Amino acid sequence: MPDQPELTIQGWGPAPAAPDDGGDLAGTLPKAARKHLTRELGWTPRPTPPVAVDQIRLTESRLGEEARTALVGLLGEDNVRTDRESRLRRAGGKSYLDLLRRREGDASDAPDAVVTPGTTEETAALLAACSEHGLVVVPFGGGTSVVGGLAGMDPDDRPSIAVDLSRMASVQSLDVPSSLVTVGPGMRGPALEEELAREGLTFGHLPQSWEFATIGGYAATRSAGQASTGVGRFDELVAGLTLATPSGVLEVGHPPATAAGPDLLGLALGSEGTLGVITEVTLRVRPRPAASAYEGWSFRTWPAGLAALQRLARHDLLPDVVRLSDADETKANLMMASGAGAKALRASLRTRGHGEGCLLVVGWEGLPALIRARQREASSLLREGGAIRLGRRVGDSWKKHRFEGPYVRDRLMDGGLLVETLETAATWSALPTVYDAVRRALRETLTRDGRAPLVMTHVSHGYPTGASLYFTVLADRDDDLPIQQWLSAKRAATDAMLAAGGTLTHHHAVGADHRPWLEREIGPLGVEVLKAVKQRLDPKGICNPGVLLPD
Amino acid sequence: MPDQPELTIQGWGPAPAAPDDGGDLAGTLPKAARKHLTRELGWTPRPTPPVAVDQIRLTESRLGEEARTALVGLLGEDNVRTDRESRLRRAGGKSYLDLLRRREGDASDAPDAVVTPGTTEETAALLAACSEHGLVVVPFGGGTSVVGGLAGMDPDDRPSIAVDLSRMASVQSLDVPSSLVTVGPGMRGPALEEELAREGLTFGHLPQSWEFATIGGYAATRSAGQASTGVGRFDELVAGLTLATPSGVLEVGHPPATAAGPDLLGLALGSEGTLGVITEVTLRVRPRPAASAYEGWSFRTWPAGLAALQRLARHDLLPDVVRLSDADETKANLMMASGAGAKALRASLRTRGHGEGCLLVVGWEGLPALIRARQREASSLLREGGAIRLGRRVGDSWKKHRFEGPYVRDRLMDGGLLVETLETAATWSALPTVYDAVRRALRETLTRDGRAPLVMTHVSHGYPTGASLYFTVLADRDDDLPIQQWLSAKRAATDAMLAAGGTLTHHHAVGADHRPWLEREIGPLGVEVLKAVKQRLDPKGICNPGVLLPD
Repeated sequence: MPDQPELTIQGWGPAPAAPDDGGDLAGTLPKAARKHLTRELGWTPRPTPPVAVDQIRLTESRLGEEARTALVGLLGEDNVRTDRESRLRRAGGKSYLDLLRRREGDASDAPDAVVTPGTTEETAALLAACSEHGLVVVPFGGGTSVVGGLAGMDPDDRPSIAVDLSRMASVQSLDVPSSLVTVGPGMRGPALEEELAREGLTFGHLPQSWEFATIGGYAATRSAGQASTGVGRFDELVAGLTLATPSGVLEVGHPPATAAGPDLLGLALGSEGTLGVITEVTLRVRPRPAASAYEGWSFRTWPAGLAALQRLARHDLLPDVVRLSDADETKANLMMASGAGAKALRASLRTRGHGEGCLLVVGWEGLPALIRARQREASSLLREGGAIRLGRRVGDSWKKHRFEGPYVRDRLMDGGLLVETLETAATWSALPTVYDAVRRALRETLTRDGRAPLVMTHVSHGYPTGASLYFTVLADRDDDLPIQQWLSAKRAATDAMLAAGGTLTHHHAVGADHRPWLEREIGPLGVEVLKAVKQRLDPKGICNPGVLLPD
Repeated sequence: MPDQPELTIQGWGPAPAAPDDGGDLAGTLPKAARKHLTRELGWTPRPTPPVAVDQIRLTESRLGEEARTALVGLLGEDNVRTDRESRLRRAGGKSYLDLLRRREGDASDAPDAVVTPGTTEETAALLAACSEHGLVVVPFGGGTSVVGGLAGMDPDDRPSIAVDLSRMASVQSLDVPSSLVTVGPGMRGPALEEELAREGLTFGHLPQSWEFATIGGYAATRSAGQASTGVGRFDELVAGLTLATPSGVLEVGHPPATAAGPDLLGLALGSEGTLGVITEVTLRVRPRPAASAYEGWSFRTWPAGLAALQRLARHDLLPDVVRLSDADETKANLMMASGAGAKALRASLRTRGHGEGCLLVVGWEGLPALIRARQREASSLLREGGAIRLGRRVGDSWKKHRFEGPYVRDRLMDGGLLVETLETAATWSALPTVYDAVRRALRETLTRDGRAPLVMTHVSHGYPTGASLYFTVLADRDDDLPIQQWLSAKRAATDAMLAAGGTLTHHHAVGADHRPWLEREIGPLGVEVLKAVKQRLDPKGICNPGVLLPD
């Protein structure tokens, strides 16, 4: 249906990758990295490829004839599909658990049908019809959720339809003087940036899922991107949106700002499809930066790096892009880099006592004179904090490779590895404790035969009051019980994260995976308030049940 | 009860002002200004003083004995008051309508009792008891509402109690590394700034009500201040808060940021006491600025001024303080200024063709090098936009007088004038239309005997996507029907404002005065969502009924 390339069913990217090299990952990782993983994780390189796509098990669609007729009456025959391909492509998202299931041939979370409304009015009529016919509705944008946002369990086990937003994927209006653009929720970042570029504008949101994720999905999940320290979290970029609900259409947000009561826009953002379907988003845009500068720095230790970022934050001097890796992530990054430059860098760091150091990538964007002034002030604070400057090459290299993570993950999974990420945020005061607690929990639960997992961590978004933490974990996969292996690690890590004062999620959202902990973050009365809102907008509970809100 | 000076009952300031000079305002306005008002407004100077405080009519407290006993049981005898003085001081707020009523001896909106809980737990217990005994609860911070936020009509006409927050008025905790402070809701700005200054910190919120308004009130109404273009609206400074409701205590907000679902903090902010009582607020603080620079600029026309601000906004170059006055406000300001400097300025502006120009005051705060860089870039854009620089004297003079408005209002009312303000915000595209529409509506409804009112307007907060508009209106008062005179003007101006695309309020909140228009801003379904939240938290409808939400 969409013009844009869809994600492949069992992994990342527009098409399944060519088979790898017998599971030893020689085509993916440098030799040093492979040796390191074998030694540290006790990983045995082995081919563990996905089953063939035509072997994926899919039960028959449960969409009844009466319901189908109603949907076809509203949307037309072309926009109501129950074929295998359409359903498989909208089965779940792209978490490690999703991929494990799809790779081993399980598509039990696939929708019973896929519909493609073209307007807000059609979507509202669709929701009313689904309420009437007892159909569960799951909005589908890019399908890139990594928290089970598309795969909640309906307690009543009703048939479910994916509302694919790919027909609402264009710019609706552009108000250049007010720096506002209104777009359909199915639009992706690259397409929107292309249109904005014609006017010399950008919206600047760059998460790792950028190639496939959609504007509606960013809004529904409170996404954050690589430059969001500077341009703002996605929720901060949204000036208004339209939410089609089973009870009618809600238009929320009133730019530039209003004091007329509680914030309904903030209720719709992060609602993850549980209150309805976002059918239009108005975003703040800005002029394309006149200049940009990326560079690398190194700290001898993680605490020194955090302390320096905190000082920058306190003085509103954080760069637009800020990414501080801990020693384990820095070591892995240096191991992955090849060429003479990388070799020289490693040697130079060792010589200067930063052999076990922490890499900081910073990026500045905007007017050249302002960049220079901010950079000068920040550099002086960084130096005072013990950092040494590594230059632009390190920054540019990070920028070049920044969307590769999910592609590499597929290859690592092909070779028998567990690979997943977790993320949180905490105040500067709580950050060191949260970091320690999560790492400890992951190491305790994922150690096998005396071999601990590799946990790599970075800060990727700084605030005046704190920062995000992003953990990537690699371990030798338990081929017999891979799902349980990860679930028990995730449970322990999340418990530890919350106990130490971290948020449940900084930018991945709640989905089905974090749902058991929502009450710990917002309290029982907070859950009740959200349920009261849901009850008013979605009295039959058809909107994405099984995610976000506990039953 | 409180240690801090309270507002006088019939006007602004800690004590009633000395009687004026027979109504001709010779002690308040320069001669030129008085002549201007007489000529333009058809104003006849005349003494119209308030009635003596002991002549204010106050009906007997309706607090029943059983209810009183319950409240005393919870809070102690000292913290439950029904004396005349306590009740009068908490009657309504400080809008023009409030003052008209109080000046003519009407205190029918006074609470039946005043209680002072000391903790969140006491407040929650109090709310539960009030629910049980059928008592309406109105939180009272500084008593500075200008939109009837303290004077809603209860449809069931139950006895009402003011919950005075002056016993919860101290710093609870300070997390310097995370730039967060937690304070009681009854704390005022000056006291908090004093405590923060000891740590080299500031929170920087400076509305005109600064001397008397409270932190809880700022949060409950989504206040904005004079430097909020730079430091942010008050709602942007709040990182978390505690809300005691009849159904229990809600703790919302999770700094630095979270993606765990809809934003409950945004629901509590701007709730104006309708969901419960804010009992604790956690705020973002920042280092005291190392440097500051205030200066004046002049534009030949209002459209030129708006266009230049829009360009600054678009490039993220707006100063921390930005205040652009239209020609009418500029003329009035220049008329009010005295001394040789002011005279020279007026002459110089005339010579340079800016005799009917628009004054812009800008203020920069922060690190000296960054101020210089921002100022340089902004100055070049301002010059390109046709502005001429007037220097620091104009900026410093504005800064010196910036809290005087409400004091002057009392004097103008003493002399027979109508004086009130309105405010809104709009996108840069809609701003000129909103400006014209509101001015036209005010002029049409307030013209008497062929004399139009004086409407003075300024932008006081700029955003990338638009700006606020603040209107001050002066007219010859209709002494027979002063309330009706203003109500019809307010109705016409608000209708015009919304029709042109303005928000209902940018920072004064909804209160009782704007309540009839809330549905036009957020839609009928938006109102239903808020009612569902209120029903869950306040099922008996005791929390500040008659404000914010329509019946």
